[in-house]
Amino acid sequence: MDAVIEYLRTNQQRFLKELCQYLRLPSVSAQSAYKKEVARCAAWLAAHCTQLGLETRVFKTKGHPIVIAKTPADAVAPVRPGSRLPHFLVYGHYDVQPPEPLELWHHLPFEPYVKGRRIYARGAADNKGQHFAHLKAVEAYLKTKTPLPCHVTFLIEGEEEVGSPNLVPFLHAHRSELAADAIIISDTGMPGLRYPALTYALRGIISFEITVRGPKSDLHSGIYGGAVDNPAMVLCSLLAKARGPDGRVAIPGFYDDVAPLTQFERRQLARLPLKERDFKRLLGVPQLFGEAGYSTEERRSARPTFEINGLTSGYQGEGSKTIIPAWARAKVTCRLVPNQHPGRIRQLVLEFFRRECPPTVQLEIKSGSGSAPYMISPESPRAKAALRALRAAFGREPLLMREGGSIPIVPQMSKVLGAEVILLGLALPDANAHAPNENFDVRCFAKGQLLSAYLWQELPRPAE
Amino acid sequence: MDAVIEYLRTNQQRFLKELCQYLRLPSVSAQSAYKKEVARCAAWLAAHCTQLGLETRVFKTKGHPIVIAKTPADAVAPVRPGSRLPHFLVYGHYDVQPPEPLELWHHLPFEPYVKGRRIYARGAADNKGQHFAHLKAVEAYLKTKTPLPCHVTFLIEGEEEVGSPNLVPFLHAHRSELAADAIIISDTGMPGLRYPALTYALRGIISFEITVRGPKSDLHSGIYGGAVDNPAMVLCSLLAKARGPDGRVAIPGFYDDVAPLTQFERRQLARLPLKERDFKRLLGVPQLFGEAGYSTEERRSARPTFEINGLTSGYQGEGSKTIIPAWARAKVTCRLVPNQHPGRIRQLVLEFFRRECPPTVQLEIKSGSGSAPYMISPESPRAKAALRALRAAFGREPLLMREGGSIPIVPQMSKVLGAEVILLGLALPDANAHAPNENFDVRCFAKGQLLSAYLWQELPRPAE
Repeated sequence: MDAVIEYLRTNQQRFLKELCQYLRLPSVSAQSAYKKEVARCAAWLAAHCTQLGLETRVFKTKGHPIVIAKTPADAVAPVRPGSRLPHFLVYGHYDVQPPEPLELWHHLPFEPYVKGRRIYARGAADNKGQHFAHLKAVEAYLKTKTPLPCHVTFLIEGEEEVGSPNLVPFLHAHRSELAADAIIISDTGMPGLRYPALTYALRGIISFEITVRGPKSDLHSGIYGGAVDNPAMVLCSLLAKARGPDGRVAIPGFYDDVAPLTQFERRQLARLPLKERDFKRLLGVPQLFGEAGYSTEERRSARPTFEINGLTSGYQGEGSKTIIPAWARAKVTCRLVPNQHPGRIRQLVLEFFRRECPPTVQLEIKSGSGSAPYMISPESPRAKAALRALRAAFGREPLLMREGGSIPIVPQMSKVLGAEVILLGLALPDANAHAPNENFDVRCFAKGQLLSAYLWQELPRPAE
Repeated sequence: MDAVIEYLRTNQQRFLKELCQYLRLPSVSAQSAYKKEVARCAAWLAAHCTQLGLETRVFKTKGHPIVIAKTPADAVAPVRPGSRLPHFLVYGHYDVQPPEPLELWHHLPFEPYVKGRRIYARGAADNKGQHFAHLKAVEAYLKTKTPLPCHVTFLIEGEEEVGSPNLVPFLHAHRSELAADAIIISDTGMPGLRYPALTYALRGIISFEITVRGPKSDLHSGIYGGAVDNPAMVLCSLLAKARGPDGRVAIPGFYDDVAPLTQFERRQLARLPLKERDFKRLLGVPQLFGEAGYSTEERRSARPTFEINGLTSGYQGEGSKTIIPAWARAKVTCRLVPNQHPGRIRQLVLEFFRRECPPTVQLEIKSGSGSAPYMISPESPRAKAALRALRAAFGREPLLMREGGSIPIVPQMSKVLGAEVILLGLALPDANAHAPNENFDVRCFAKGQLLSAYLWQELPRPAE
């Protein structure tokens, strides 16, 4: 291991230059004008992996290519007869968000710029810098001829920012080859440089578009007001019934499957550095809010929600217009937590609104496909191994955290490949992912390489 | 009177031609491009009044002119010493709504076209045809030298369709000259040719714009959902509390000043021809709705309301966007009935929302100036006189009705001039006021002239 650590220590400048080359490639997956650039980026990445000694292939998809790079058979430690070395899959994505609005960038988004301890460029944190750290760790093993205690396969796709439409079919088609003991993803955040963290849970999500229809057209509120129901009022009443003033979702059965927080988890979440007063100031709200009996951290990551994302009805211009609107619509999303099931929650929400809707209007509900919540045990041997690697790399006591957002591919990959996903995010809270002046801290980059190098040592072998 | 009736009978063709001349003048008050046309229309009207024998003046205002035309002193019947003849003011407006969208008119809006029993043109019903009927009735008295039993003054303004900004100042400035025993307005509707009606009440109105503000910007619903209140949800909850599922406004004190319907009124409103099933079909609602214990006619004209006119919050585009919106806004109007006071209702609404709003958000409420409800006694001598005139003109038993809409100038004129307003609408329900293919039934025009001719005979003299 000493050779690996030393290799990483002495090659940081070159690694940074290489990352800048990678960041210079404008691999914007959402905009068809960049299609060739996305392919060029995949080719650059594949060539780089090959150069490191990985067995690399570029797979075409209906969209952007997927790069697969594997450690060669001779890179691993010898294995006792009758046992096998574990296989870990590192997932990442080489595509990036569109850079717009360009005028808000201090430097051009595809001309990487190092200032202080940060590299500024589109894709720096999300996600090129993060998976590049893992590549550099494996490079250190290969180049120092230090035997790896496991097989590692990199799966770096080019469509994450457009919803990964071709990933699951690809996983199915290559399931046996990609079957792994665990999947490592560094594509989330950490609370601060002094707060390395393992994310052991994600919330799921399900979306609804709820439309209430009343009269066939907008009505004069003078001529008809009082004699027909108002779709906007019905919508408001329905939505108000769905969440209590106590912050709890009031849809019967909604909490039935919610896995309660353990005392261990609550102690862990209480260690996170952002405090209530920080949240209040950060968000600019007059007062925080939420379900009684839970902390802000718990509310925003370990408890499910029913949120209105948008409201549309009737007249929205200047002044007033005296109408009863013909219809009213709300966009709603529910965040789900383990062990809620998107399909069951969809059913409960539909039943609730259908039951509560008065006969004076018509109700239409469209619902998205949803994404399941995800969780690994924070006390499992694998979680403990990840924590040991974090501690070794960062020299700090690592935290256990839950992510309030949803990453649909995490439960999907886990399901298709039958492997747990270990989330080791390296982006700081001000990394500006999806925003102008996206950046990655060079210390996160370097510590991330160490984390990866230690991780291969720490992760448990398959039971024999 | 026989000479008056005969004069009206024999001059219908000429009256129609004159009305068509009047309708040909595109007096669109809202669009500055028509300013000269509006002035030309006022001049045409004034010349026409002069030609009939009325003492006519055109008054400039900051906007469009006001035409005043009075019966001459020698047109009235001799009066006993110590008594006086009554003075009635006929209000109307020569300005019209914009004609757009032109492509929906079957004929050009300012090329009047008679088809069957209807004259099609912008302004035919609203309001040129209606006040022209009164002019023709007075013309019949003057031309047949039949002594009028009252003084009549026509006040025909040119800014009704833009909110009459200069009318109240004009009334104040000419108060002694315009002081009247009653004000006659034919600018509303009647339920059908066989249903002549006196409108004895109008609803008032007050408007609100209610904004709920939460975080300083839209928040990621995954990262923060559950830990801050959702302004759209707070708005929905507040609005839902303002009206019960029973259709009653739930703001404390809201009904305190409401004048209850008398048994006489309820019997009268029950005589109106449109039945519940007609409303349901007309409006295309699955089911009618409203306050228990009241008919549809009563609900839409004699009971106050709290209506949402529009809702705006967060994301309104295609698909979903996972945000907690920074703010949410509703446009609301309350229709008021006698004896509710707009200022007091504003206060109650403000107090209600401020009291109910949780401390997790900020509340902003803007409120418009409002318009008072209006009512005359449907059993007063003047109302009975109007009903006798309707019966004589239409040969049908007239109805008593209430208008659910609001006409701000009615309570304003009544207050400034200290006179009751008698609303004798002549437009049929399909007259398309403010819409393409506006029309006026020639029978309503002719019967309206008779109504006016009888009205001057029937209206009571001032108490001696």
